[in-house]
Amino acid sequence: MGKKKDAQMDLLSADSATSSSSRAARSSKVNAQSMAARQREISVSEFFSRNRHLLGFDNPRRSLLTGIKEAVDNSLDACEEAGILPDIEVQLTQVADDRYIMRVCDNGPGIVKSQIPNIFGKLLYGSKFHRLRMSRGQQGIGISAASMYGQLTTGKATRVISRTGAKRPAHCYEMQIDTARNKPQIVREEPCEWDQKQGTQVEIEMEARYQRGRQSVDEYLRQTALANPHLQLLYTAPDGREELYERSSEEMPQEAQEIKPHPHGIELGVLMKMLQGTPHRTLQGFLTQEFSRVSVRVAKDICTRADLKPNGRPKSIAREESDRLFKAINATKLMRPPTDCIVPIGEDLLTASLQANVQAAFYASTTRPPAVYRGNPFQIEVAVAYGGDINPEGSVQLMRFANRVPLLYQPSACAITRSLIDTDWRNYRISQSNNALPTGPLVVIVHVASVWVPFTSESKDAVAHYDEIIKEIRLGVQECGRKVGEHIGKMRREAEAARKKDYIAQYIGHIAAALQEITGDGDRKTQNVEKNLQGLLERSRS
Amino acid sequence: MGKKKDAQMDLLSADSATSSSSRAARSSKVNAQSMAARQREISVSEFFSRNRHLLGFDNPRRSLLTGIKEAVDNSLDACEEAGILPDIEVQLTQVADDRYIMRVCDNGPGIVKSQIPNIFGKLLYGSKFHRLRMSRGQQGIGISAASMYGQLTTGKATRVISRTGAKRPAHCYEMQIDTARNKPQIVREEPCEWDQKQGTQVEIEMEARYQRGRQSVDEYLRQTALANPHLQLLYTAPDGREELYERSSEEMPQEAQEIKPHPHGIELGVLMKMLQGTPHRTLQGFLTQEFSRVSVRVAKDICTRADLKPNGRPKSIAREESDRLFKAINATKLMRPPTDCIVPIGEDLLTASLQANVQAAFYASTTRPPAVYRGNPFQIEVAVAYGGDINPEGSVQLMRFANRVPLLYQPSACAITRSLIDTDWRNYRISQSNNALPTGPLVVIVHVASVWVPFTSESKDAVAHYDEIIKEIRLGVQECGRKVGEHIGKMRREAEAARKKDYIAQYIGHIAAALQEITGDGDRKTQNVEKNLQGLLERSRS
Repeated sequence: MGKKKDAQMDLLSADSATSSSSRAARSSKVNAQSMAARQREISVSEFFSRNRHLLGFDNPRRSLLTGIKEAVDNSLDACEEAGILPDIEVQLTQVADDRYIMRVCDNGPGIVKSQIPNIFGKLLYGSKFHRLRMSRGQQGIGISAASMYGQLTTGKATRVISRTGAKRPAHCYEMQIDTARNKPQIVREEPCEWDQKQGTQVEIEMEARYQRGRQSVDEYLRQTALANPHLQLLYTAPDGREELYERSSEEMPQEAQEIKPHPHGIELGVLMKMLQGTPHRTLQGFLTQEFSRVSVRVAKDICTRADLKPNGRPKSIAREESDRLFKAINATKLMRPPTDCIVPIGEDLLTASLQANVQAAFYASTTRPPAVYRGNPFQIEVAVAYGGDINPEGSVQLMRFANRVPLLYQPSACAITRSLIDTDWRNYRISQSNNALPTGPLVVIVHVASVWVPFTSESKDAVAHYDEIIKEIRLGVQECGRKVGEHIGKMRREAEAARKKDYIAQYIGHIAAALQEITGDGDRKTQNVEKNLQGLLERSRS
Repeated sequence: MGKKKDAQMDLLSADSATSSSSRAARSSKVNAQSMAARQREISVSEFFSRNRHLLGFDNPRRSLLTGIKEAVDNSLDACEEAGILPDIEVQLTQVADDRYIMRVCDNGPGIVKSQIPNIFGKLLYGSKFHRLRMSRGQQGIGISAASMYGQLTTGKATRVISRTGAKRPAHCYEMQIDTARNKPQIVREEPCEWDQKQGTQVEIEMEARYQRGRQSVDEYLRQTALANPHLQLLYTAPDGREELYERSSEEMPQEAQEIKPHPHGIELGVLMKMLQGTPHRTLQGFLTQEFSRVSVRVAKDICTRADLKPNGRPKSIAREESDRLFKAINATKLMRPPTDCIVPIGEDLLTASLQANVQAAFYASTTRPPAVYRGNPFQIEVAVAYGGDINPEGSVQLMRFANRVPLLYQPSACAITRSLIDTDWRNYRISQSNNALPTGPLVVIVHVASVWVPFTSESKDAVAHYDEIIKEIRLGVQECGRKVGEHIGKMRREAEAARKKDYIAQYIGHIAAALQEITGDGDRKTQNVEKNLQGLLERSRS
């Protein structure tokens, strides 16, 4: 198959180039000059406006969910960073057949006036991208993309109110995005009255469709409350129905620490850029200060291995040398990255949250020790609920979370789903077809927490298939699976014992009657015999 | 399931906000001010550098393919736009265990000096994004992302030589990307000697892995030659092996026409932006000039329906009015978009190309009439090869193309694969399990051509699931499937006839001998009888 010959001539000889360029005549004089005139910069807003499906705004129903999700995630991040127990209000109002206003209001630290336009009206703007720190948002795209989607489908401006404290005035902004320049366009801006002392509220009108069920706003909020026991959430659906998720823990999650990059997760190009940009004057200072897990001794080791002087200037390290430095770093054994930057939900809170949400007969949870992929620390948590009111028909209900955010789309692309499918659930007395999720009355929660969750797309729906992550999920799932298996085993043994007891109990009357016939005892004695036999049965079974 | 109560209190009352903000103390004084200080713009290069898996640079093997693909696609686009029959040279050179230099050289129109740095050293820069025109590239990301990947993994600069004509000097550039500012950084720049009269050559050194087989550079080039019969391609593999794909057609594909957007594919926000930015002074002029398929009569119809004056100024159309205009446009019946902007490969060329590449017993191809999704014209082509040397074991070999570019990754996410699975191949005498691709000695080519191919991700591996597209693919596949089915039916009937003939032929000798016994004829006459009977059999069968 394939037409392949040895090349016998220079394909790109002058002759061939000339003969073919003479054909250019037909093409209305298109040449390098006329093509150059058409070259233009494309703004990132134009790019994502045309490719908005990449950000999760591909149909009206999903767009509504994505908009709410971006706003709520931001509110939670802001509250946690400021150490405030979050009180969030979400409201959906239908204004036309295919149009809704989403409103999300929090009691967070608020946003200083000058930052409001950029945060809601400029793509790729934020505080989280340049820090290695566990948070829900990462890219600085989400909420401004929601603004942009609203503007694109309804022409309406996004409305933001924010207040940074009781003594400061609230500010109200109405803004759009100038997509050609990726800049906020302020429509209206004024101080305003607001009954809240502190916080931020965003309102976006958008083309949308509201529908309950799987992958709905309702489901997202329910799962968000589940993974954030410290959150108080009031949700008003389009039909006016109110749902209050009360906080089940008054404790703030431990504060997530920012970490420096681990040397083993750095690429050569990034290392070179860091060498160029560092304020440190010596290579040793650079290595110990800009990375985690590099002590003075380790830095000296690395320098020796790279044949470089520890007091050499980072900026003057030429290309060849940075290559040697890169190899030396990767050949040096280092401690794994610090893991206090990861804040798990915790086994107890996870179980409590699950108990509050799912009526089951058995619960179990496990928080794995932190691990590392490509230099990034991460940690896996798994919780299960079994039996009780859970629907025993069909596949297990799998709830996926990344940094406490529910993932509702693209389950089949996700490493979490893959890990569950690859686990042999029949070991735990739960039925499972080949290459499928197990079936039965089971709810499984898997939480991936990391300073940098590797998603398969910007819409952040699925965790990428890193071996280290899959392995940790599997270990967590197995641990919970074993506990469920033991529970099911115990239940079955008890049921079997009860069945046997009932069976023997049927004969006790007959045995007593037979004894009476033989011994000729009176009825009272026979009753005593019967009682004794029953007592004997109870004792032998317990 | 779920803890839901009616809300009885205002969650966001002043009290609750105060009590929770008092907790802020623990959080090292994080507040709106300190958070504002951390807000920063994120450059699009930084974003894609950290998320390079989104662009197809997720592992060393795929990165090599993606780099080659971006360069070759650009070369083909440039040659076609300038009306030059493309001669392209691709060379891979291994320079270390995990490092290769990719070199792609074309005889295209060249690039004017001032544009070279931006085209290869700036993301989101190009000539194709703002035009509605069928081309391989769309976004202005691909080749600069390949440069960036090379720089990230090896620290090396991208080397470009380009010349716009025999009378002009060639220019050589070495450049890197300043990722923090998304700007080209020129390392070296000088006029240079070049043995080509016209064209562009790009060299990128990158961390890569070379491996033949499915999803390889070799496979991509083979399929590219197949879908571009006017392309002459010389490929030098890392081991020095040369493969020459000779052009099988001297004819340039028809030139793709740029079209104006169709009014039914426009969103309200975009319409408003167009109204603001138009140079036309009247609404009627705006509608007829900036859209396709809007005649003066239709424009007047739309205005009447929207209760707007045809000679009103587009810029002064206020928000309420643009909403009315939008509704009026969508309520007006319009001709479908023009479809001369789509250039199919063509049934004959497709079959010829397939014949040159696959040794089969039967070939068929079909080019569907153009159709429209969301205002964008598109056209589907399908070709099949059956039997012969094609491996009869396992699934069919499916080759997917979008605007003549082979799609090698993410087959299961692609509308093309879905359409093939959803076709009932048993109707065409080809075996198929439920929810799977058919099996047998079959090669299927599907080509989606459009002014805007809707991909599921920036790495452009899979076509999104638009109903209109899936339907057209299915119709094309069915048409070819029927032809294959007829061929298989004919083959089976012929085989059956041959089998019967052999069977009857066995008895002819016995019949002749029996006749001889009855009639007492001589041997010669019996031989004649035998010959006559055989002749009779031949005639009755043909």
